Amino acid sequence: MAETRATQAMRIVKALMHRDRASHSMGIKIISAAVGNCCVEMRIREDMLNGHTTCHGGMLFALADSAFAFACNSRNQRTVIAAAHIDFLRPAVLNDVLRATAIEHTLGSRLGLYDVTVTNQRGETVALFRGKSCPIDGTIIEDLPVIHKARSSAKKLQASKKRSATR
Amino acid sequence: MAETRATQAMRIVKALMHRDRASHSMGIKIISAAVGNCCVEMRIREDMLNGHTTCHGGMLFALADSAFAFACNSRNQRTVIAAAHIDFLRPAVLNDVLRATAIEHTLGSRLGLYDVTVTNQRGETVALFRGKSCPIDGTIIEDLPVIHKARSSAKKLQASKKRSATR
Amino acid sequence: MAETRATQAMRIVKALMHRDRASHSMGIKIISAAVGNCCVEMRIREDMLNGHTTCHGGMLFALADSAFAFACNSRNQRTVIAAAHIDFLRPAVLNDVLRATAIEHTLGSRLGLYDVTVTNQRGETVALFRGKSCPIDGTIIEDLPVIHKARSSAKKLQASKKRSATR
Amino acid sequence: MAETRATQAMRIVKALMHRDRASHSMGIKIISAAVGNCCVEMRIREDMLNGHTTCHGGMLFALADSAFAFACNSRNQRTVIAAAHIDFLRPAVLNDVLRATAIEHTLGSRLGLYDVTVTNQRGETVALFRGKSCPIDGTIIEDLPVIHKARSSAKKLQASKKRSATR
Repeated sequence: MAETRATQAMRIVKALMHRDRASHSMGIKIISAAVGNCCVEMRIREDMLNGHTTCHGGMLFALADSAFAFACNSRNQRTVIAAAHIDFLRPAVLNDVLRATAIEHTLGSRLGLYDVTVTNQRGETVALFRGKSCPIDGTIIEDLPVIHKARSSAKKLQASKKRSATR
Repeated sequence: MAETRATQAMRIVKALMHRDRASHSMGIKIISAAVGNCCVEMRIREDMLNGHTTCHGGMLFALADSAFAFACNSRNQRTVIAAAHIDFLRPAVLNDVLRATAIEHTLGSRLGLYDVTVTNQRGETVALFRGKSCPIDGTIIEDLPVIHKARSSAKKLQASKKRSATR
Repeated sequence: MAETRATQAMRIVKALMHRDRASHSMGIKIISAAVGNCCVEMRIREDMLNGHTTCHGGMLFALADSAFAFACNSRNQRTVIAAAHIDFLRPAVLNDVLRATAIEHTLGSRLGLYDVTVTNQRGETVALFRGKSCPIDGTIIEDLPVIHKARSSAKKLQASKKRSATR
Repeated sequence: MAETRATQAMRIVKALMHRDRASHSMGIKIISAAVGNCCVEMRIREDMLNGHTTCHGGMLFALADSAFAFACNSRNQRTVIAAAHIDFLRPAVLNDVLRATAIEHTLGSRLGLYDVTVTNQRGETVALFRGKSCPIDGTIIEDLPVIHKARSSAKKLQASKKRSATR
């Protein structure tokens, strides 16, 4: 039986995670992945705290960036981060279990745009991250083709957004 | 019969638009408005073109900023823009009819976060704008109370986002 | 006598300004220009005010964007804006005379980064803008070559920054 | 003999660094500090690499964020990060020795704006970070007063920028 696109995406994300030393050392775990999307989890450890005894902003960014990287590489096209903006809405503290959920917002030939929401175990938003991706040469899994974007999905998203804004 | 929240929001947005000289001079029209949301429209005129004969980035930003301002003032709490980030994805040209749709993403006591999508008449995304709002003293319509945020809406949004990311 | 690089840059900026309908309609004037840099001025008119009777954020952005556009096109390589971030630090009001000063921060083959400071007639900072430029095909003045970047200037800037940070 | 402001700032930064578990675990070292400014250094280790064998974006952000935190807390007013934007200009690789230099750009009563430049051992710019700070209650060293901003420094910076842009 043929492998679905979602299964392929999970396989690609796992292959990338396998090589990602930084995500491993932060204790990041993959919760779910699909084409263009990924959700990861991390528990705040003592060595992630800053001088104010809250989670260092860099660790929150790193968690969001890992979710972003898995989402934008999930099509098997090697992709790196070009820029990101992050808003810190609430502090995270020791032993908080944070989830970062990345969704593909826009994907063009030279630029992708992904939104990542970081929430804590109470469902409160800790940080909002918007990252820009840039494709580079190569694939994550060599013998697998690149999963190209279906044309319609962006327009559907558009339409659903318009509806939600005019309700 | 009591006025609904959505009707109140539209009344507030119209009152603000009435005083907004810049939005008038750009020919901006309100398409729809609800609590925390707004959709506006603008046709690209000759005097909005830059030296490359495409729409000046400032006019695209201004359109998004107007949608943002109507959305974040729609609760009757006077609110101004503190910062914004904009990504220009596609040029707009003479006679394009653009829509800017603003949705409330996060609303706290000191900071609000709104996402605005600017699309053209073919439904293509022209620009993505994320703005931060800051409340100031006063209301838009004096004899109307401020429409406070219902607690649950943010968490519902959260939940629906998680679902969409793990599909 | 040969034309200096600075004189050429001013000639290119003026040629671009000549075609820029939006900058004209906002009453923007070029104060100075050099390779990679530009300073422009604008007086806040009634039709630039928003519903709070302060200058519309879009007009402030547009002023900064014009300075940015003149700075990044001043090398005669046609260049457009890809993204920008703006922080609004202080409101501007009717008849304020604002200056936007753009400086080239980084220039690579695919991306340029420019910082624009908007100040009022009292020298107070009204807004800070950081824009990313993207080169496109073509030149501003056809019979003039592109003014390429001298390698050393970036490193000098670097060095002077380090000094100022360690004072 | 009275302690200079610069010496006080260094003492405050060291006190904050002493409590900062995350900066310690990343091997960050303070190179220099002054009122509103700081320069830190970090060597890229194997556990900082991502799945593409370059430095994880989160580690680059964390380095910049530490420089930012030391700069904005150097006045002894406890201060946290509210938002940041980062542009990644060049990859960093294993054993690169990176420096992050933070300078105070704007400081108001509710918001500060800091620019951080991350460079490698060859003086090349790896990343540009612009962070917004937000003061919270408390001080870093209890028995030391807060070092308030001298009014003139911002205007001097302004003036020097204008000069450099009009050269």
